[in-house]
Amino acid sequence: MKQHFSKRVSISDTDPVGEILRVASDPAIISFAGGLPAPELFPVEAVKEAANLVLEENGATILQYSDSQGFLALREMIAKRMSAEGVQTDAEHIMIATGSQQVIDLTSKLFLDENDVVIVEKPTYLCAMDVFKSYGAKIISIEMDEHGMKTDVLEKVLAENPQTKLIYTIPTFQNPTGRTLTLERRKKIAELAAQYQVMVLEDNPYGAIRFAGEELPTIQSFDQSGHVIYTSTFSKILAPGLRIGWVVTSPDLIKRYTMMKQSADLHSDVLSQAIITKFFEKNDIDAHIKKISQLYHQRYLKMQASIDRYFPSNVKTSRPEGGMFIWVEVPGVEDTQELFEACIQRKVAFVPGDPFYDQDATSGTFRLNYSNMSEEQIEIGIKRLGELLKEL
Amino acid sequence: MKQHFSKRVSISDTDPVGEILRVASDPAIISFAGGLPAPELFPVEAVKEAANLVLEENGATILQYSDSQGFLALREMIAKRMSAEGVQTDAEHIMIATGSQQVIDLTSKLFLDENDVVIVEKPTYLCAMDVFKSYGAKIISIEMDEHGMKTDVLEKVLAENPQTKLIYTIPTFQNPTGRTLTLERRKKIAELAAQYQVMVLEDNPYGAIRFAGEELPTIQSFDQSGHVIYTSTFSKILAPGLRIGWVVTSPDLIKRYTMMKQSADLHSDVLSQAIITKFFEKNDIDAHIKKISQLYHQRYLKMQASIDRYFPSNVKTSRPEGGMFIWVEVPGVEDTQELFEACIQRKVAFVPGDPFYDQDATSGTFRLNYSNMSEEQIEIGIKRLGELLKEL
Repeated sequence: MKQHFSKRVSISDTDPVGEILRVASDPAIISFAGGLPAPELFPVEAVKEAANLVLEENGATILQYSDSQGFLALREMIAKRMSAEGVQTDAEHIMIATGSQQVIDLTSKLFLDENDVVIVEKPTYLCAMDVFKSYGAKIISIEMDEHGMKTDVLEKVLAENPQTKLIYTIPTFQNPTGRTLTLERRKKIAELAAQYQVMVLEDNPYGAIRFAGEELPTIQSFDQSGHVIYTSTFSKILAPGLRIGWVVTSPDLIKRYTMMKQSADLHSDVLSQAIITKFFEKNDIDAHIKKISQLYHQRYLKMQASIDRYFPSNVKTSRPEGGMFIWVEVPGVEDTQELFEACIQRKVAFVPGDPFYDQDATSGTFRLNYSNMSEEQIEIGIKRLGELLKEL
Repeated sequence: MKQHFSKRVSISDTDPVGEILRVASDPAIISFAGGLPAPELFPVEAVKEAANLVLEENGATILQYSDSQGFLALREMIAKRMSAEGVQTDAEHIMIATGSQQVIDLTSKLFLDENDVVIVEKPTYLCAMDVFKSYGAKIISIEMDEHGMKTDVLEKVLAENPQTKLIYTIPTFQNPTGRTLTLERRKKIAELAAQYQVMVLEDNPYGAIRFAGEELPTIQSFDQSGHVIYTSTFSKILAPGLRIGWVVTSPDLIKRYTMMKQSADLHSDVLSQAIITKFFEKNDIDAHIKKISQLYHQRYLKMQASIDRYFPSNVKTSRPEGGMFIWVEVPGVEDTQELFEACIQRKVAFVPGDPFYDQDATSGTFRLNYSNMSEEQIEIGIKRLGELLKEL
């Protein structure tokens, strides 16, 4: 049979990164490929307790259809936490989504027509680029340095591209680089958004997992004109298996998001919304986040020390102060896909840099995740990887 | 500020049906408006037990990121049940979605470009039309009779509209009419899909809730050419608060759905997928479905009897053999929105017919839901509604 797909469906039905993650998921492989939280810190007992409580107290409501905007008690809890972090908001400014991935999708659906321009960091989260392209948007990537997206380049690109609808940024502990945008640049992005009437999607999945340096205000906190939409998730601080994220913007825009959300999946899982609400009520989430941050810090330190010890001396790495990723650049290496295949033979995995670029990938780059492997595995894996790099 | 929405965003930010459901959710109102299952039959204890078991047995996996195609054990369980119902399938033909609403959305994203035609029943599920329109599609509605979509009209429309990409049908206990498509018409739709190379989305949320008549094979069971995509959900037989539905099609197409799903929300809630799998393992789901069907049958009989007793004699209603809805037509009534507002004064609610039509709504129509109110409430509510109808 012949299928008449929409134009947005690519001719290829291959998913190279999916393939990498599948190969890397072999338990015999030491994998720095995925972006998985450390499962040993999942609060299984507390989640179980929360599930029991909410089903006992309110079972019939939790198993019923619910509000597309999301559980009110959860939105209130998020608002309270965000206000404590300096973002004054309330439940009316928040919608619950099926992970922050859905916020990227709904934002695209709300704002993007074919041939609109979306500006992203170079490199950036590949599943976000996939979404933008699926709405027919064109991607323009902005060079980064150790301090995040270069806002002088951004300004130039905005001036030259009036078709720009959206700036997508992960300002803190960026995926894939681990880099953090400076305070000045955060202010600048908010200003540019207002000046050029362009929406900003500020994606902050990793910000809470900080193990060094000082917390920085969100871009949204500098937004005077309502152009900055903020999204985050419980995936990194609690559990990604409960697919719950959120978006913060004006009540008017929340109404639009909610209508789109209704079309997309009616509403997010009610049991998971209730469990998270109850978990926050019954547990010290800040202590839990501290535990995660401390563990990731140790693993990061071990990975950085192992890189210093086992990698060739011309290797460059980012120096994240939190989050889950180190970005590596090995001058002279042309094809990190080839390197990946050699690594799989030696039972170690990473994600090659290419997929994180829309085009003009910097050769010899790859992403290492340090949150999901033990310190022992990290040392063994980095040693193997270093040996291969030295053989090249 | 000025927001530059995409073309697919309607100028209006009102949601008239959302408003109706909000008004009708006042507990003082006897509401036949929503499409809510009877909460008193939600198996709260069994869900709790399943949640405890899966978290004890497999907590760290359940709280972690998971496969976009969905939990393998759940897909296997669905395949087994569907095979028992006569659809030979396996886990590779199935993807789990965040409710069957998401299948409607992903199907649209896969197949629809601007100005493509989607054929639907007249009237049909309004949130499906919202999705199709959000992808720029044009709707053509096909007249129904008591036996569902008129396939002679369908054939004519297909011949006249080569831009048709998709036929959307709810063949069994249709929303909003409660009508069921005959065996002959099911075969015919499968034939026409092959002949005109058009995809069919067969949406079957209600089919399991049958309290009269004989079970009918799915349209997909007559599909020789791979044009019929089937979707269903656990919302009506278990609990809609766990947002889990599924799609059945060829492994090639499942690959495409899975890539779209990854962009949309990475994967569906893992805890809910695991709970449902365990629930089916530990409980007699057929006995549970029988209990639901029996309760809805009693409520349907009470509603039909009350209509016969209290409504004007010129009223016409559908005669569903299952599902959740009766479709009512009151000749002479012009504006059921006006009737709705009068009803709210007397604390009874329904959904006016208009939103279920893309255009040319049949006046004097409305939808009554009988699954969510007790027999006592049904009699009181229908009596109030009948009194108002007689005053018109």
